[in-house]
Amino acid sequence: MIQTTLINGAWLDGRRQNILIENGRFKSIGVPDDTGADKRIDAEGMAIMPAFYNTHTHSPMNLLRGYADDMPLKRWLNEYIWPFEAKMTPEDMVSGSRMAMDEMMRTGTVGFYDMYFHVDGTARLAAKAGMRAIVAETFFSHNIGSIDDYADTMRGWNSQTDGKTLLAVGPHAIYTNDAESLKKAAGIARDLGSLITIHISETKEEVDNCLKATGMTPVNYLDSLGFLGPDVMAAHCVWLNRQELDLMAERGVTIAHCPCSNMKLGSGRFPYREAIASGVRITLATDGCASNNNLDMREEMKFAALLSKVDGDVECLPAGMVLEWATRNGAEAFGIDGGVIAEGKAADCLLIDMNDFRMQPCHNLIANWVYAASSDIINTVICDGRVIFNRQRQCTE
Amino acid sequence: MIQTTLINGAWLDGRRQNILIENGRFKSIGVPDDTGADKRIDAEGMAIMPAFYNTHTHSPMNLLRGYADDMPLKRWLNEYIWPFEAKMTPEDMVSGSRMAMDEMMRTGTVGFYDMYFHVDGTARLAAKAGMRAIVAETFFSHNIGSIDDYADTMRGWNSQTDGKTLLAVGPHAIYTNDAESLKKAAGIARDLGSLITIHISETKEEVDNCLKATGMTPVNYLDSLGFLGPDVMAAHCVWLNRQELDLMAERGVTIAHCPCSNMKLGSGRFPYREAIASGVRITLATDGCASNNNLDMREEMKFAALLSKVDGDVECLPAGMVLEWATRNGAEAFGIDGGVIAEGKAADCLLIDMNDFRMQPCHNLIANWVYAASSDIINTVICDGRVIFNRQRQCTE
Repeated sequence: MIQTTLINGAWLDGRRQNILIENGRFKSIGVPDDTGADKRIDAEGMAIMPAFYNTHTHSPMNLLRGYADDMPLKRWLNEYIWPFEAKMTPEDMVSGSRMAMDEMMRTGTVGFYDMYFHVDGTARLAAKAGMRAIVAETFFSHNIGSIDDYADTMRGWNSQTDGKTLLAVGPHAIYTNDAESLKKAAGIARDLGSLITIHISETKEEVDNCLKATGMTPVNYLDSLGFLGPDVMAAHCVWLNRQELDLMAERGVTIAHCPCSNMKLGSGRFPYREAIASGVRITLATDGCASNNNLDMREEMKFAALLSKVDGDVECLPAGMVLEWATRNGAEAFGIDGGVIAEGKAADCLLIDMNDFRMQPCHNLIANWVYAASSDIINTVICDGRVIFNRQRQCTE
Repeated sequence: MIQTTLINGAWLDGRRQNILIENGRFKSIGVPDDTGADKRIDAEGMAIMPAFYNTHTHSPMNLLRGYADDMPLKRWLNEYIWPFEAKMTPEDMVSGSRMAMDEMMRTGTVGFYDMYFHVDGTARLAAKAGMRAIVAETFFSHNIGSIDDYADTMRGWNSQTDGKTLLAVGPHAIYTNDAESLKKAAGIARDLGSLITIHISETKEEVDNCLKATGMTPVNYLDSLGFLGPDVMAAHCVWLNRQELDLMAERGVTIAHCPCSNMKLGSGRFPYREAIASGVRITLATDGCASNNNLDMREEMKFAALLSKVDGDVECLPAGMVLEWATRNGAEAFGIDGGVIAEGKAADCLLIDMNDFRMQPCHNLIANWVYAASSDIINTVICDGRVIFNRQRQCTE
């Protein structure tokens, strides 16, 4: 059955327009006011914007928000994060994911790429919520033996799903997986046609140790194992040189850039200028709530754009480009023909309040959205043509 | 006439407490539920937090929000900001200030230190709004001749005011004022007992040019003119060495640190570790909306705390300290015995919604407030014991 929604009078390309959504896609833009539809949304005073895709997070870690901050990485992990996680049950993880999904929907994220444990619970929740999700079970050398069982779960889920939620494989990092474990994880993912995610070059220590152990940087080491390909989402990528970025671009790898996490953990600064020049696909991500401490992609855009400028390179990452990282590039990484408001594209979008004090005056809508706004001005979130969040208008001024 | 307000059941120091405000001060904390008061505020589900003082902004520049972004400082100033400002009338400036004050009150700021032109209009608005404001007229070598007229205005205002709004003197910078102009501005301010603000060492170019011209860094040059003292608010202070910071601490100067502006304009990174070690008073500020692009002090706290960490120094500016910069240190700079929630202190405070999704779970209230929250969780803003902003609760879930 065809499902249609008409958005009435949303601000787009400098004027108010009526937008018809049909079966999860933008069918026509600029239709008459009285166009028939199953559902109508009054977008008076609102602009339509592409929705966010958060390409690297650990949703159950919402339970650890504010649990440990302002300390060195090793102490943070050894004394706080890992002992907490060791006590978490699969049910706790689902609770954390539920909180994370509520937060993501409220702040305009329609798709997230997750990496944790017992991930089938998270995938079920995401499907129920109507979100898009790629949910990767995490593997280390010590638990790689369990990947065959997981492969059965993944095969089952991915063959039944409508494609909006997928299970994937997440070997944690090169320093927690040996070469055999990395090859096994990638091999199983490729046998099943599933996606792969991994943390790469988050800290300088990781690069230094890899150079010592293998004579290669992490990216070259992973490439020597046949690991890199267009099915790989590489999180962080802080300590990469131009040769590595060019190689990643050639292999079709996607980067999940996590500016708040990299800043908060003191990991270092992403090589903006070189990464953009290499042509590698760059997406934006929040990382988990323990190192951010929220999942707010609007705030993340501002952090990325401002961090890129701090030492004087004020032109390399303008507002429009960071918005593309958070939206269109994310959609591409999810395999969705979307991330922009245009006919034929996936109907993943936000309606945002243009009358909010942070959106006035409106010399430049995108600059206001990236640099001035708050995710609290999001009124409606639409994923695959369906409203997944709607803020009630206040009844008094 | 005594005015009393009872805040019922606000979260403070790990438990719900009743707080009695009398004549602009916290009279008693922990009073019984049925304590008599002229006004009652139900703080069920809310925490009480100190309010913000934004110690460097240019409120009329709210009109320029999003007008020019992502470009080098000189082009930004020469082609966009200055031509726009040249067309602004005093009435335009008051309109911009009105927008700024609305934004500041909604985002929890009770006091701001402004620097612009025709500032008496801004001071009148602030007084009417019940905000605290120090409003400095800006001087350059080319308009220093008008400072005597301004001195009359300032003398008149400051002698009549209740002390919540004060006019002050703002020589723009060392590169736009010659030595005579700087001395004249400081001299008049000191004759009248008024406050002084100036931009110091915002860019490396300023420091290099000062060294070439005078053989001294900007701070030492200003000290050689007798400029520095406890009445000086120094904005930016990006390019300072430890000797200069020690000298500023000795002279009692206050720093207005503006992380978003320094990042967005590519000015550089504030020397966090050295500034903290010197003991100089550090406060937090947004700068104007053209270089931020908002006046959101909650967001500014996160930017400061994360920028301090990016290159690995994750312990130097913890959440509690940056909250003090934005609250207690700001209050001190305003000459207010406040910025903390304690008996006898000025009743400048916020009630924030602890049930908001970004405040859950609550392992650490201050970490949640600094790193995870949004200023949209502010329900009530109290300045000098009076409610200046109150968000209506939504009537439906």
